[in-house]
Amino acid sequence: AMAKSKFEYVRDFEADDTCLPDCWIVVRLDGRNFHRFSEQHEFKKPNDDRALQLMTRCAQTVMQELEDIAIAYGQSDEYSFVFKKKTRWFKRRASKFMTHVVSQFASSYVFYWKDYFKDQQLLYPPGFDGRIVLYPSNQNLKDYLSWRQADCHINNLYNTVFWMLVQRSGLTPVEAQDRLQGTLAGDKNEILFSEFNINYNNEPLMYRKGTVLIWQKVNEIITKKIKLPKEAEEKEVEVTRTKTKVVPLHCDIIGDQFWEEYPEILAEGS
Amino acid sequence: AMAKSKFEYVRDFEADDTCLPDCWIVVRLDGRNFHRFSEQHEFKKPNDDRALQLMTRCAQTVMQELEDIAIAYGQSDEYSFVFKKKTRWFKRRASKFMTHVVSQFASSYVFYWKDYFKDQQLLYPPGFDGRIVLYPSNQNLKDYLSWRQADCHINNLYNTVFWMLVQRSGLTPVEAQDRLQGTLAGDKNEILFSEFNINYNNEPLMYRKGTVLIWQKVNEIITKKIKLPKEAEEKEVEVTRTKTKVVPLHCDIIGDQFWEEYPEILAEGS
Amino acid sequence: AMAKSKFEYVRDFEADDTCLPDCWIVVRLDGRNFHRFSEQHEFKKPNDDRALQLMTRCAQTVMQELEDIAIAYGQSDEYSFVFKKKTRWFKRRASKFMTHVVSQFASSYVFYWKDYFKDQQLLYPPGFDGRIVLYPSNQNLKDYLSWRQADCHINNLYNTVFWMLVQRSGLTPVEAQDRLQGTLAGDKNEILFSEFNINYNNEPLMYRKGTVLIWQKVNEIITKKIKLPKEAEEKEVEVTRTKTKVVPLHCDIIGDQFWEEYPEILAEGS
Amino acid sequence: AMAKSKFEYVRDFEADDTCLPDCWIVVRLDGRNFHRFSEQHEFKKPNDDRALQLMTRCAQTVMQELEDIAIAYGQSDEYSFVFKKKTRWFKRRASKFMTHVVSQFASSYVFYWKDYFKDQQLLYPPGFDGRIVLYPSNQNLKDYLSWRQADCHINNLYNTVFWMLVQRSGLTPVEAQDRLQGTLAGDKNEILFSEFNINYNNEPLMYRKGTVLIWQKVNEIITKKIKLPKEAEEKEVEVTRTKTKVVPLHCDIIGDQFWEEYPEILAEGS
Repeated sequence: AMAKSKFEYVRDFEADDTCLPDCWIVVRLDGRNFHRFSEQHEFKKPNDDRALQLMTRCAQTVMQELEDIAIAYGQSDEYSFVFKKKTRWFKRRASKFMTHVVSQFASSYVFYWKDYFKDQQLLYPPGFDGRIVLYPSNQNLKDYLSWRQADCHINNLYNTVFWMLVQRSGLTPVEAQDRLQGTLAGDKNEILFSEFNINYNNEPLMYRKGTVLIWQKVNEIITKKIKLPKEAEEKEVEVTRTKTKVVPLHCDIIGDQFWEEYPEILAEGS
Repeated sequence: AMAKSKFEYVRDFEADDTCLPDCWIVVRLDGRNFHRFSEQHEFKKPNDDRALQLMTRCAQTVMQELEDIAIAYGQSDEYSFVFKKKTRWFKRRASKFMTHVVSQFASSYVFYWKDYFKDQQLLYPPGFDGRIVLYPSNQNLKDYLSWRQADCHINNLYNTVFWMLVQRSGLTPVEAQDRLQGTLAGDKNEILFSEFNINYNNEPLMYRKGTVLIWQKVNEIITKKIKLPKEAEEKEVEVTRTKTKVVPLHCDIIGDQFWEEYPEILAEGS
Repeated sequence: AMAKSKFEYVRDFEADDTCLPDCWIVVRLDGRNFHRFSEQHEFKKPNDDRALQLMTRCAQTVMQELEDIAIAYGQSDEYSFVFKKKTRWFKRRASKFMTHVVSQFASSYVFYWKDYFKDQQLLYPPGFDGRIVLYPSNQNLKDYLSWRQADCHINNLYNTVFWMLVQRSGLTPVEAQDRLQGTLAGDKNEILFSEFNINYNNEPLMYRKGTVLIWQKVNEIITKKIKLPKEAEEKEVEVTRTKTKVVPLHCDIIGDQFWEEYPEILAEGS
Repeated sequence: AMAKSKFEYVRDFEADDTCLPDCWIVVRLDGRNFHRFSEQHEFKKPNDDRALQLMTRCAQTVMQELEDIAIAYGQSDEYSFVFKKKTRWFKRRASKFMTHVVSQFASSYVFYWKDYFKDQQLLYPPGFDGRIVLYPSNQNLKDYLSWRQADCHINNLYNTVFWMLVQRSGLTPVEAQDRLQGTLAGDKNEILFSEFNINYNNEPLMYRKGTVLIWQKVNEIITKKIKLPKEAEEKEVEVTRTKTKVVPLHCDIIGDQFWEEYPEILAEGS
């Protein structure tokens, strides 16, 4: 009854999901039902620094634990991870990329929760949904990241005004929504300025631009104790080590400047 | 610069990954580098009850939080989830099934860790890898689950003898491996019996059969306080409610008996 | 410059398109721009026997030249070919099934044209479009074939009335179309009967039901000359040989009767 | 019984096979069993001009009848068709590209056969197999075409020597094969020169390089009869019309020169 071999044929039903070579592989994840989750955990509106920083902490873990991620971009409850064009990680199998990203992110979210939310208890384990998309050219990839950052801008401008109207002017959510119906970016900036004395451009960059994660060489100075053969005593010496770390930035990635400053991200060899 | 619309074209690069209708959808997940993970967290060998029960706790959460999972089967650091043939959840998109399963499982693993491992600290957030497979017929599905249970049996028998040889007879892992090289099931049973006085068939079912999770109607008797209009005081009454719960079993699923006992699992309507 | 090996990497870009095992594989082809083609080649309306028989001749060639086709069904300018559930032909690669079917059909169409259209010249080489669909269960497959035969019925009833109105009553195509707008099957039968004295049920089965192609054992009696060792002269003897041939039927395949009569088509071993 | 709607659900089983945007789409076809086909139709060895020209005639028809093919390359019994990166033909559905290419090619092969093979009868309708591959970058595409041309070179050099040894030196095919076993290109060139006084580089370009098909603007001078209002009689005038035609070339496409000469083939807009 236990002869395994007669059942082994079921392995042939697994489909090959290898990603087309020479394309950028993007995995984007989103929090599942995070509207409800953010209310139950009393996230500050429109932006909760703890929640945003926890998201970024998880994304850093993903970049460090997985291989060949060139850049990541996050905002709100979503994060996108860009694997190098030439990566051969797990033979480029789509399911491997998706499941490793979301599972590592999800376990990290619970693991690091208390570092950001302190006494605020996590009430239940959150879920994340992921998808994978291929981009053949560098321009496609830059446009993808621009799309997400433009989305961040639009949502954050809306949310900033919306929550000012609710929190400061005492409108109900429905009233605030009606007030903003049909307004353009300029109108929203004007409301912020004239009614709340807020210059939107002075809002924190993390809220307006989201978070970009890139690999950066950083110098670390560490202190080592060494004992030279001819000397009797140990000496302390300072040693500079170059390490590659995941660094968060809150800058524009739609214009050319970012890509000119960090050409290695898109470099062919990468 | 922020006009989102010019970047929206990148959405068209997302591929349709709808699963073929009328097939069973199986998502199987495996712990990433759990060999290392189990050593670092001092799992008892060959089976650690805490680890197995935590896996099952996570799988129950997955079945409760996601939709249309008919049955799940787990052993060691893997779990398979079977979605109903007719499920329309997320339009049967493969990436949704995979990422929701592994992310919910991974966050639950950290969330519920302390309920099983108590003072044993979780050292880092674990990763899980997932895959999706379609099975057209009921026989295919039963053979898939049989394959996993036969795998459980073969591995557990091997591991049981291996760790006896190491823990009780003091063999090194390499020596134990050499000793078992080329042995058949009967040989291993004989070693267990003659050298360690262990009848393998008396080993715990959870180790030998793994864990099956199914939905079962259970009656709950709860106590309610009610106040009848004509009476002055509240009364306590017992009310029986029928709830559907995820129940763990440790039984054979290779033979017909299980499927005859629970015909609703494979029932067409399901 | 001619070193082939440095270019061989491009082979890795070819995607695996293996069909899920244990599913029926259906390839359906349609004539490309056959409305125009039928006018330019003066097909008789609503049905041209030569054109229908040529289609069937091509489909028979496809069944004979390719492997593992269990049944085919054709009507108008389309034909569906059903490969056996268990076929391993070309490792079940979808592109192989599609391109072999349509190319064999297309070359046969030109090759056998003159057998059916005699002096009517073929003006240009026609094109065909194909697609592939998988069906997990026998019921799915029967429903697919029923769908095509119901389509045949609906179109043929409409076309029969439409062309009567045009050819016999002298309506313009637009007038005939207007007349039929919103009519039900019963109305169309009534128009045929009361205005043209046609009982639709007496129309040829090939028009109303389309063409089913199945494999049938047929006995062929052939005459062989043999010379027995002990006899001086050759003798003529009749030998009965059983051959398997592709046979056209024009019968209902929606009801159960057809499938009960030919159970081998859906038989597991097939 | 004929209610079509209850069967329509089977349409949902058709999978989406849209090609990733912004990639070159290559469809390559090969003759099915053309070794046997070429023997039965007495193709001249190693190259039959009639067969090669017929292949090219079919490929031209494919380029003219289908849309958005930027370049094609053929050799022996194979042809590759390259659809433009930005084509939206049939919504980029892979099955449409493959089946239209092979069916148009196959019907053309029979249709134009007699223009090249004259009295040599076509004995049966040939089949072709096709596949589709995506290439993200221009370099990938050039490497793909280089791969096919390098293949042409290697095979043609081998075949040229092989058939000289068989036809002129009277070796059996097995003897010729043994003789060539392990020889390098230089060795084969040397055999051709020393034993048969053939300089391989003087062999026809069509054999050595295969056939490239591209779109070229050509001026056609046609004679038109026109009648000017003020004049009594018709006059004949010559009018130059620019047409775009499919032109065959037999040149190297591995080096840069070809691509510099015809930059429009890879041009972004194309």
